[in-house]
Amino acid sequence: MTIFKKIINKEVPADIVYEDEFCMAFKDIHPKAPTHVLIIPKKEIPSMAEVAPEDKEILGHLLLKAAEVAEQLGLKEKGYRLVINTRQHGGQEVPHLHIHILGGRPLKWPPG
Amino acid sequence: MTIFKKIINKEVPADIVYEDEFCMAFKDIHPKAPTHVLIIPKKEIPSMAEVAPEDKEILGHLLLKAAEVAEQLGLKEKGYRLVINTRQHGGQEVPHLHIHILGGRPLKWPPG
Repeated sequence: MTIFKKIINKEVPADIVYEDEFCMAFKDIHPKAPTHVLIIPKKEIPSMAEVAPEDKEILGHLLLKAAEVAEQLGLKEKGYRLVINTRQHGGQEVPHLHIHILGGRPLKWPPG
Repeated sequence: MTIFKKIINKEVPADIVYEDEFCMAFKDIHPKAPTHVLIIPKKEIPSMAEVAPEDKEILGHLLLKAAEVAEQLGLKEKGYRLVINTRQHGGQEVPHLHIHILGGRPLKWPPG
């Protein structure tokens, strides 16, 4: 079981900023920007490499809620960056799909 | 009219790698990785800051097709990074929602 599944199950504490039936958002424990939150589906999808057509609604929900959480965190006006790491080259560390929401400072280019 | 709308309209050439009724993917003209492609909705949504609940299906479609395009480009096994820049702090350059697909090398952390 991944650390994220344990957070979903409330077996491991996290600083949760949003939760609904399908997803959860919480603060990254190693923040790389003044605001750094992760939003994850409650369904255990390992990464973007494993998404299937039936996940389309969950993926749309995740992005829509990522935008809402960013607004809730005060990032909408100045902007922010969403990042999804997939497998080794992406630098993915937990094999449970997650979107990084980073803001509170100008993000540089290239993105890694 | 943004440069991306002109690409959608085929008024400006682009190296298109995927296209369907709802989205288009083409190579970034300033690549930051061996593979660097943008996938955009044909609907003119300026950024994630302007998405509305009715865009959920388009957003899900975009992410699903981003994964398919990444696989088509040979990035699935080793992995890749998806990046969505929003407004100034995100470093967004064209006010038409787009997802960067970067791969072909290990992406560093933090992502900008």
